[in-house]
Amino acid sequence: MKQQDSSPLTSPHKRSTAEEMQQLISRLYPICRSITGNGVRESLRILQEYIPLQIQEVASGTAVFDWRVPPEWNIRDAYIKDHKGNRIVDFRKHNLHILSYSIPIKGSFRLEELIPHLYTLPEQPDLIPYRTSYYQENWGFCLPHRLLESMRDDRYEVCIDSSLKDGFLSYGELLLAGTSEEEVLISTHICHPSLCNDNLSGLAVCTFLAHYLSLRPHRYSYRFLFVPGTIGAITWLAINEDQLSRIRHGLVASLLGDEGDFTYKRSRRRQAEIDRVVPFVLSELEKAHKVIDFVPYGYDERQYCSPGLNLPVGCLTRSTYGTFAAYHTSADNLDFVKATQLEESLQVYQAVVDTLDQNRYYLNLNPKCEPQLGRRGLYALIGGQNDSKQFELAILWVLNLSDGQHSLLDIAEQSQMNFSLLVAAAKALVKGELLTEIQDVD
Amino acid sequence: MKQQDSSPLTSPHKRSTAEEMQQLISRLYPICRSITGNGVRESLRILQEYIPLQIQEVASGTAVFDWRVPPEWNIRDAYIKDHKGNRIVDFRKHNLHILSYSIPIKGSFRLEELIPHLYTLPEQPDLIPYRTSYYQENWGFCLPHRLLESMRDDRYEVCIDSSLKDGFLSYGELLLAGTSEEEVLISTHICHPSLCNDNLSGLAVCTFLAHYLSLRPHRYSYRFLFVPGTIGAITWLAINEDQLSRIRHGLVASLLGDEGDFTYKRSRRRQAEIDRVVPFVLSELEKAHKVIDFVPYGYDERQYCSPGLNLPVGCLTRSTYGTFAAYHTSADNLDFVKATQLEESLQVYQAVVDTLDQNRYYLNLNPKCEPQLGRRGLYALIGGQNDSKQFELAILWVLNLSDGQHSLLDIAEQSQMNFSLLVAAAKALVKGELLTEIQDVD
Amino acid sequence: MKQQDSSPLTSPHKRSTAEEMQQLISRLYPICRSITGNGVRESLRILQEYIPLQIQEVASGTAVFDWRVPPEWNIRDAYIKDHKGNRIVDFRKHNLHILSYSIPIKGSFRLEELIPHLYTLPEQPDLIPYRTSYYQENWGFCLPHRLLESMRDDRYEVCIDSSLKDGFLSYGELLLAGTSEEEVLISTHICHPSLCNDNLSGLAVCTFLAHYLSLRPHRYSYRFLFVPGTIGAITWLAINEDQLSRIRHGLVASLLGDEGDFTYKRSRRRQAEIDRVVPFVLSELEKAHKVIDFVPYGYDERQYCSPGLNLPVGCLTRSTYGTFAAYHTSADNLDFVKATQLEESLQVYQAVVDTLDQNRYYLNLNPKCEPQLGRRGLYALIGGQNDSKQFELAILWVLNLSDGQHSLLDIAEQSQMNFSLLVAAAKALVKGELLTEIQDVD
Repeated sequence: MKQQDSSPLTSPHKRSTAEEMQQLISRLYPICRSITGNGVRESLRILQEYIPLQIQEVASGTAVFDWRVPPEWNIRDAYIKDHKGNRIVDFRKHNLHILSYSIPIKGSFRLEELIPHLYTLPEQPDLIPYRTSYYQENWGFCLPHRLLESMRDDRYEVCIDSSLKDGFLSYGELLLAGTSEEEVLISTHICHPSLCNDNLSGLAVCTFLAHYLSLRPHRYSYRFLFVPGTIGAITWLAINEDQLSRIRHGLVASLLGDEGDFTYKRSRRRQAEIDRVVPFVLSELEKAHKVIDFVPYGYDERQYCSPGLNLPVGCLTRSTYGTFAAYHTSADNLDFVKATQLEESLQVYQAVVDTLDQNRYYLNLNPKCEPQLGRRGLYALIGGQNDSKQFELAILWVLNLSDGQHSLLDIAEQSQMNFSLLVAAAKALVKGELLTEIQDVD
Repeated sequence: MKQQDSSPLTSPHKRSTAEEMQQLISRLYPICRSITGNGVRESLRILQEYIPLQIQEVASGTAVFDWRVPPEWNIRDAYIKDHKGNRIVDFRKHNLHILSYSIPIKGSFRLEELIPHLYTLPEQPDLIPYRTSYYQENWGFCLPHRLLESMRDDRYEVCIDSSLKDGFLSYGELLLAGTSEEEVLISTHICHPSLCNDNLSGLAVCTFLAHYLSLRPHRYSYRFLFVPGTIGAITWLAINEDQLSRIRHGLVASLLGDEGDFTYKRSRRRQAEIDRVVPFVLSELEKAHKVIDFVPYGYDERQYCSPGLNLPVGCLTRSTYGTFAAYHTSADNLDFVKATQLEESLQVYQAVVDTLDQNRYYLNLNPKCEPQLGRRGLYALIGGQNDSKQFELAILWVLNLSDGQHSLLDIAEQSQMNFSLLVAAAKALVKGELLTEIQDVD
Repeated sequence: MKQQDSSPLTSPHKRSTAEEMQQLISRLYPICRSITGNGVRESLRILQEYIPLQIQEVASGTAVFDWRVPPEWNIRDAYIKDHKGNRIVDFRKHNLHILSYSIPIKGSFRLEELIPHLYTLPEQPDLIPYRTSYYQENWGFCLPHRLLESMRDDRYEVCIDSSLKDGFLSYGELLLAGTSEEEVLISTHICHPSLCNDNLSGLAVCTFLAHYLSLRPHRYSYRFLFVPGTIGAITWLAINEDQLSRIRHGLVASLLGDEGDFTYKRSRRRQAEIDRVVPFVLSELEKAHKVIDFVPYGYDERQYCSPGLNLPVGCLTRSTYGTFAAYHTSADNLDFVKATQLEESLQVYQAVVDTLDQNRYYLNLNPKCEPQLGRRGLYALIGGQNDSKQFELAILWVLNLSDGQHSLLDIAEQSQMNFSLLVAAAKALVKGELLTEIQDVD
């Protein structure tokens, strides 16, 4: 495709993937995103330079389950001026200064009238908080608490040059078709303004994961969603309800650039394959991590795992929702997200999709006693030695447990052998006509 | 009812419940009870002053499963006199002095003839043991070992003025009808003579628990049994065999006044709802306790949990059967049972019945994605904040797990949230038409 | 039988069983066994002096599942001579010197030609290793590494006077018929030359276990197999495939004379009755032991537990496969195996078969409430005492859990009571017509 020829991924001056993810984040950081509006569209268009994303537009007012797609919000400018005419709070300096979805307003307010519209963090007095009011008409500014404390004027001039009217909700979607129609869903939220870990890190890792998958054959079809949080996921689910049964595994991706250990939050099913694959991969890669049970708050797994859908979708982050100091503040900036962390996160996601893709069920075609492996070159010819060879052990494990009840992951867990070695053993046995893949399990 | 108007529970000089339980125990303590006889009837009549108990009478000889209701035993007097005519052992001084169900006897015995009929505790030489011989005709006295050691006369005059003849077995029964015919069974043994913890404490707590339930609406019907141990439970079960399927939960109540930690002994089913509710309540109330598995000895759970009945009946005590020094001795007296312990035991039983009664299954009526809670006033309108509100979390948990498979107890265990908060969340969601109670589970 | 009259087990000078096992091992030690050949036949004929073993012969070339019975191998002499004519490696001095299944060869070899045919243990330089080449034609010698290092001649004279030609594979089989046709399989490998722990210890313990069982009535039929490893088990399984469903439990016996703790390796089923009985017996006998999960390598459980057969066969050894220094070397000699260990191993195997044989399901014939045990002499007649009698408790446990779902082993595990006491309680209850054995469970 012509577009790809000129994409940042094929530029002549080859950067490392980690640098490219950081560069992408730097480009996206200044844009003011919300759950709708031009900031989302502009961000998605930048992602299209990397991967062949489709941008979907859903009209305001569309009924999606219990919700309706809200009016589209756009903003050009906003400020609070003191009596000298100085912009003491200035949207042009930081997107976080505006309460997201603020209605337009212009006028002079007495300080005490203004205060109910000002949001600060008294315990982190130098930071701007991130606040929204999507579903109740309101207006407001977010600012450092120290600035609020220094406001001494009687009156302030206030301007919010925004618009809130019928339009569209935009989201990005990419399907990388595999040999099977069964899908792996990777979903990330795109609605946050200038917050790097939450969630430009998710956008970057998902973009580069999609690129990685686009370069190799795979069994599953992989569907990437870049959606505004909550309403975007609900909208996609409502529109695609009749196709959800294709989803065999899924992950919500977010918070992937901080220094925290990995955290895997299980799907509501608790024992789905994804709930075993992710901890297995993290352990095999020797990444410090914790596994937590499903709870019905957090990111869009709330929607994917609602009881009427109950999709096998977990959530893989580094730090978790609300547990780091920079969370939902202006401190979640370009310095907060590190290249090594992004790269390590991408590596884990790659290993997860590789493991999902290679995790198959096989059937031992010679299940009564062991086959004579020696004459097939699969077993040592001198007996009596004690240095058990790992590949021979892998062969024996795959043969013994390939009864239609055990996947390679089951065999890996039971044998505590390396997954790739078991994959190689299975391939050798298939080649030796001692094993066959089972196509339809469940 | 006229009777209730004059009952101790409505007396003008209001005592605390703890004091009233102690007063009831003091009234019952001097009465000589056994598995049949006037002592049981008199005790049940006293309980009728508190709760509208029915006294049931079953004739001697009635076949009840493998057993027959025994003859009725009554006793007026019993003693051993020395050569000076002194009553050295005197039934009028302590009910425990008589081997329960002793046949009448009168005569002079040489010391060596008498000794096989004397029961003592050599290791607790100042205490009178409690001994019975219900099913083999016998006679005997129980006395302090020191007294036995001091008996130096050659002959003693012995008199037991008892009667053992056809009559009735008496027990108390009270059904507090709820909106459902499904029953909770609370059973306590009434056969012990002057032993306070075992089991006047059980009588007192059950009486006041019944009173507590009589004052409020409840879903389940509560059936209280005040029965002689073993034969009373067997008799009730045999007579009511065709109605046992109504029993959904049950507890055997005993040993509720000592200083020991609570002990919950699971039903034979091990995983019945009662087996989860009692430990849950004890934990939520932060009561030190232990949970032990079912064993086929102890109190009347032996009968309720026999394999052919297998009712979901556990046993909730403080100390356990045979594990405290005063057990089945004259040291289990009015001083041994403390008001604070009785009150705490009653509080736990009340919380258990409240939890059983409120533990329901609900169905999320909007199970695909979350409903829009904000417009129903069930969710914060300013987004982005991190101080997760407990009631909102309770709402989300109830919605997410109300799929017909999870009761509120399941949700409480999974979420580790307060049970009452989940009850309140469920009520708010029912009111908001987002949830409905499921009437028939199982 | 005449044969038994003159057998070592009925000799007039009575030795202890431990001594007899050691004597048997001493007789078998000098014989050169392999997977076929006269050494196996001679060994089996010695066992026939102890137990009425049948010797089975299967012709070379017979197809057995994926394998064929190999040619028969026999050897008379083998040596390496130096230039002085000294036999520096001499088969007549140690059976291990020959690579098992070496083809005949005679000639003069230069040292560098010879070296690829010499097997040593550089890290255990004084020991002769045990090596085989059953399924690829080859020849070779095994020798101490120090001897190899001292070989300085340019040429050596080599002779292997062996034969490898169509013949038979021999194995021993003994069925001790019980009252039931259901079988317990005890399998041990007979193919190793002069190695005492691996596996003359297994031969000795199995022989004396069979003798033990032949002297007492038993429910199960016990089938003993003395087979060459791998090919012998495969051959027996292939020939008897249609009768495998009779096998209810099984054990592979090996490594039973060393000083290691017992090791039980579970069957592939992991939860088979044998997988519970062996650890239970080891615990009840207070033997230090470990229980490990099934892995698809080790001894002939590899074949019995192949996925298409999946027999409930575990493996009970002391040390395990490949984990002790003497393993598969000339150090596994008569000094390595101790009489006390052999005796203890036999004791454990006896307790295992006794427990298997006595583990039954019973049905409580009076399942509603407890039966009145006192009038049947099964319960104390004086009530109120606290010294719970173990036999009464055993009676209550057996009654409570004999609902058709619990075997005596289940009851023993749940009650933590002694298995023999429960057996005795069950017998007393059967005699009292309160219990009946269930014949067909599953």
